[in-house]
Amino acid sequence: MSLDPVLTRIDADLPHALDRLMALMRIPSISTDPAHARDCTAAAEWLAEDLRSIGFEARPHQTPGRPMVLGNGGESGPHLLFYGHYDVQPVDPLELWHRDPFDPAIEETPRGRVIRGRGASDDKGQLMTFVEACRAWKAVHGTLPARLTMFFEGEEESGSPSLVPFLQENTEALRADLALICDTGLFDAETPGIVTMLRGLVGEEITVTGPSKDLHSGMYGGPAMNPIRVLARILAALHDSDGRVTVPGFYEGVADLPEAVARQWQDLGFDAQAFLGEVGLSEPAGEAGSTALEMIWSRPTCEINGIHGGYTGAGFKTVLPSQASAKVSFRLVGEQDPLRIRDSFRAMVRGMLPPDCEVAFEEHGASAAAQMAIDAPAFERARAALSAEWPKPAAFIGSGGSIPVAGHFKRILGMDSMLIGFAHDDDAIHSPNEKYDVESFHKGIRSWARILAALSS
Amino acid sequence: MSLDPVLTRIDADLPHALDRLMALMRIPSISTDPAHARDCTAAAEWLAEDLRSIGFEARPHQTPGRPMVLGNGGESGPHLLFYGHYDVQPVDPLELWHRDPFDPAIEETPRGRVIRGRGASDDKGQLMTFVEACRAWKAVHGTLPARLTMFFEGEEESGSPSLVPFLQENTEALRADLALICDTGLFDAETPGIVTMLRGLVGEEITVTGPSKDLHSGMYGGPAMNPIRVLARILAALHDSDGRVTVPGFYEGVADLPEAVARQWQDLGFDAQAFLGEVGLSEPAGEAGSTALEMIWSRPTCEINGIHGGYTGAGFKTVLPSQASAKVSFRLVGEQDPLRIRDSFRAMVRGMLPPDCEVAFEEHGASAAAQMAIDAPAFERARAALSAEWPKPAAFIGSGGSIPVAGHFKRILGMDSMLIGFAHDDDAIHSPNEKYDVESFHKGIRSWARILAALSS
Repeated sequence: MSLDPVLTRIDADLPHALDRLMALMRIPSISTDPAHARDCTAAAEWLAEDLRSIGFEARPHQTPGRPMVLGNGGESGPHLLFYGHYDVQPVDPLELWHRDPFDPAIEETPRGRVIRGRGASDDKGQLMTFVEACRAWKAVHGTLPARLTMFFEGEEESGSPSLVPFLQENTEALRADLALICDTGLFDAETPGIVTMLRGLVGEEITVTGPSKDLHSGMYGGPAMNPIRVLARILAALHDSDGRVTVPGFYEGVADLPEAVARQWQDLGFDAQAFLGEVGLSEPAGEAGSTALEMIWSRPTCEINGIHGGYTGAGFKTVLPSQASAKVSFRLVGEQDPLRIRDSFRAMVRGMLPPDCEVAFEEHGASAAAQMAIDAPAFERARAALSAEWPKPAAFIGSGGSIPVAGHFKRILGMDSMLIGFAHDDDAIHSPNEKYDVESFHKGIRSWARILAALSS
Repeated sequence: MSLDPVLTRIDADLPHALDRLMALMRIPSISTDPAHARDCTAAAEWLAEDLRSIGFEARPHQTPGRPMVLGNGGESGPHLLFYGHYDVQPVDPLELWHRDPFDPAIEETPRGRVIRGRGASDDKGQLMTFVEACRAWKAVHGTLPARLTMFFEGEEESGSPSLVPFLQENTEALRADLALICDTGLFDAETPGIVTMLRGLVGEEITVTGPSKDLHSGMYGGPAMNPIRVLARILAALHDSDGRVTVPGFYEGVADLPEAVARQWQDLGFDAQAFLGEVGLSEPAGEAGSTALEMIWSRPTCEINGIHGGYTGAGFKTVLPSQASAKVSFRLVGEQDPLRIRDSFRAMVRGMLPPDCEVAFEEHGASAAAQMAIDAPAFERARAALSAEWPKPAAFIGSGGSIPVAGHFKRILGMDSMLIGFAHDDDAIHSPNEKYDVESFHKGIRSWARILAALSS
């Protein structure tokens, strides 16, 4: 089946494809906030309906959390599973958005047209690139280019609590020859990437309790333990002066970057100055002795993602609070064991508690890093297909973000994943004013059409 | 003019006095929150009206912030100024209150009847003890026992920004022979106290900024500076391992406790175990080598009163925030200079900033510690009067809280202050479920009647 008419069809249908994406973006499917549970269900139903309109058998599947969407289509060719997620990040701080995050629009910017709104890039826009490629293929050829299983998750932004049980219970429905995942970025505006290294993630929330109730710092300041002070001491101790993480055993399983990979990365000409300059920074702040690209792709980290305690409103309140809490996450690489790191972190925190303090832990996911088997022929075919669409040849790259689903596919379904995405570093995912370049969306759809042709030929 | 009928009148009128206090407590006069500005005005008007009803010439006086209430009454005798504040602390966390903080009620508890609600103890209940003593005196004798100036502030819980200018502009109206201040506590349930040492207070809010916007910790975690981590490091460095404050020059002006005072305090038989046990603690957590009473009364402290940064809602968000902030306060003693300490703190914080980080400071008040001239005859007369009312003799004590107004009275008006109050340590001021014992209120009113008799005889 020929590719060219499909690409022509994609070009002609772009305005309608953008309309469909914005319809999906209008549904505020924030998975981490229970108040938006119904919106997640609405987004899942929208997607199932859209898949049915292009010939898939598709429906939402209930889970203890947000529903999964499964769809099957196509009669012959290799069996490919496509994964994306329809849930989005919270939108706070809302006052920093210059438009309603759930009233998306196409905006003209100095760098070209963008789709503005929550989920534009992470991950509704990316997910729809694949759906639109299928739609065009079906419209031109009356059939899909391969046996396709669509799998859309609704809990990716909240630690995917239902994912592993769902994979375990639906092994037969989900096992394919290869998984395609669209939740990553371009290497740069001209260079697409296939991600072959993914960092893992351990998320922990710690709550330190001192006094049994909030106290007046005049009456108790001095003799009473202050849990914010205890928490600050713990958090400050998580890195040494070289920026290395101090959790005992943390670096077990972290290998040095192979010489060949390091060289390939060097050839990419990553501009750390520009990358940091975009967000008002000038110096890589991570481990001494690592390049910025290594800090993102191949080195593990510990970050404090949130902290709260005491009075934080307007003015001043001389309270000595009963509790203080922080959300801490670790990005993992290589063979680091997420559960051992969680245990070691908790033991370290407990060991730093002074008398009269208690700590409670809440877990928010734990996944190991993943390394793809790039010698499989599909990887070279996909690289060639991508290279035909974009100005520069596609590169095998790393990813700082964590896409645990790839590891789960491998472990539970025995299936390799190919991670291809079209996001830009400045898409402001997880931040106010998220956007997705119209070019990312358009060339993303075309890229998938090319890859589908390459993999099914 | 005889005292006994006044005491009898106070006993008989207690139910009505409680009703009046609860009427005042129903006005949510939170000064730190601009949304409650109108409630502060309403409380000031309520008080002026109440003072007029017992023969004072009284009205609210506008300031750039919340109004001050001034009232004058009485024809002869010494000129006494009475100070209290009608504004109250915020009520969060609201969910920990077992009743609406601004719908007060008398509750039966295992330790006796209490008035429950925000401001019961700090400071509406205390303020009204003096007003009710005057009311009884006026009812019985047709006149007031001395020349009295009533002075009620509405910004005590928000750093008193208008206080100093108001004192400077109203010197003549406010200068009296002696100030009486009711905003402190009993030493214990049986022992009243006259506070002769007050800690000062410096309040600072610091905001650390790293990246110019919130970032995804997957994409930027590693090379990007995390302002929460920087803030934690700064806060953790404010104390050394002995619990001493590390701000350079902090202990300049802190004298050792005089032997005689230390002995007197020892004689008080303060039960640190019980004091801390009330709030779920077991060990004094302050400076090594100090007793718990010294930690509260005669040693300076540094506390973190609030901290905030990143994502603090339900679930998890792998954000690397642009900003993190904390509210920090210092309690001062002896001759410590609040402005030098502020400068030294700011210099220390600036010196700890890594590259690409900025810090902004917001000041929330600065006042020195105060030491009363207890050899003035009024102090011994008041001590005797208090001792006649309570089971045990009154003691000269310290106070951990900061009541800067006493220092301002001395400096601006050349007037000494006598600080007498009837609060209990377990009144939960600044906390949920604040209360004031009905006994504190009742015996407080009687105490003031006795003190007024003693000072005007």
